[in-house]
Amino acid sequence: MKAYTQYLWFNTEKRQEFINITPQVEEAVRESGVQEGLCLVNAMHITASVFINDDESGLHQDFMEWVEGLAPYGRDYTHNLTGEDNADSHLKRTLMGREVVVAITRGRLDLGPWEQIFYGEFDGKRRKRVLIKVIGE
Amino acid sequence: MKAYTQYLWFNTEKRQEFINITPQVEEAVRESGVQEGLCLVNAMHITASVFINDDESGLHQDFMEWVEGLAPYGRDYTHNLTGEDNADSHLKRTLMGREVVVAITRGRLDLGPWEQIFYGEFDGKRRKRVLIKVIGE
Amino acid sequence: MKAYTQYLWFNTEKRQEFINITPQVEEAVRESGVQEGLCLVNAMHITASVFINDDESGLHQDFMEWVEGLAPYGRDYTHNLTGEDNADSHLKRTLMGREVVVAITRGRLDLGPWEQIFYGEFDGKRRKRVLIKVIGE
Repeated sequence: MKAYTQYLWFNTEKRQEFINITPQVEEAVRESGVQEGLCLVNAMHITASVFINDDESGLHQDFMEWVEGLAPYGRDYTHNLTGEDNADSHLKRTLMGREVVVAITRGRLDLGPWEQIFYGEFDGKRRKRVLIKVIGE
Repeated sequence: MKAYTQYLWFNTEKRQEFINITPQVEEAVRESGVQEGLCLVNAMHITASVFINDDESGLHQDFMEWVEGLAPYGRDYTHNLTGEDNADSHLKRTLMGREVVVAITRGRLDLGPWEQIFYGEFDGKRRKRVLIKVIGE
Repeated sequence: MKAYTQYLWFNTEKRQEFINITPQVEEAVRESGVQEGLCLVNAMHITASVFINDDESGLHQDFMEWVEGLAPYGRDYTHNLTGEDNADSHLKRTLMGREVVVAITRGRLDLGPWEQIFYGEFDGKRRKRVLIKVIGE
């Protein structure tokens, strides 16, 4: 069994941002040499997300407005009494998800036609990591 | 290490539908010959879901009404300016989840007493795929 | 390839409760002897959750209020016509997620600085299980 680990670093300019990381994940799979296996991609911070969806800017705007509607910034959250202002970011990331697991088939990410992997930042302007773990043969 | 890949095809009659795919996933695990490992089951399309819950028709109706309430069809979504009418389907699938990972123990899906695996379609009447990937020994 | 399986049992005093299970999962990884691999942790019951977030009591209160707002107890759910009163618990668990997959790197859970693994109970006061499955080498 082969295992391969890689960390991606992000420091977004905006508080909330989606970044297509499919090329970096594909490259990690190539470097791993794994032909058949699984690839885990997860946010290592609890106000960020890794998710799979379409790379369409209008849809991303819809996602941003949707999570804002369901978990609005600036409400009377208990967590924010600690001095933080990011309770909403924890909730938003929960909606979008922490991780994805993608199959590797014949040396490639086995993605559907429109599937793209995104980093979803909900409390940016600071350094954060994503983990890519590949296992297989 | 063994690896096994299978694709399931769906073409639902209704726009939204839940289909119990546990028997197909169990069969794939049998065919893989894996005794101990992991089984990934994921939608390959971004308006569909794979999730685990109870096989109870009343609950399924509750799920359908719940996602409709949180991500209604026919709102003023930016994505729909592309000519699509399925922005809500992308949001609904996000609520229900893209994938499940299930343990394989002694050659069987290691599911709890009520756990059943479902395909969740939110923009049907077209051909779509689900991926089953089994790895282990 | 090594594989290791462990079940954790819970029987919470309250209907809804979050329990930090990171120490138990770390111990399972140690016992597995796996140095590089993946660790799946999932609820085996469909009204409970396993999720990763911060171990901060104020945030947990926010999570509890948030899921109550989006999936309130005591509404007119079809599932509850079966005699159950837990349709909301199925919805709440769906928001928080069934499972997490965590990388194992150099014999340890490869978690970010604030990542902690929680059992999320939404219909407690009864015995329920969580599955830990470790595979790797």
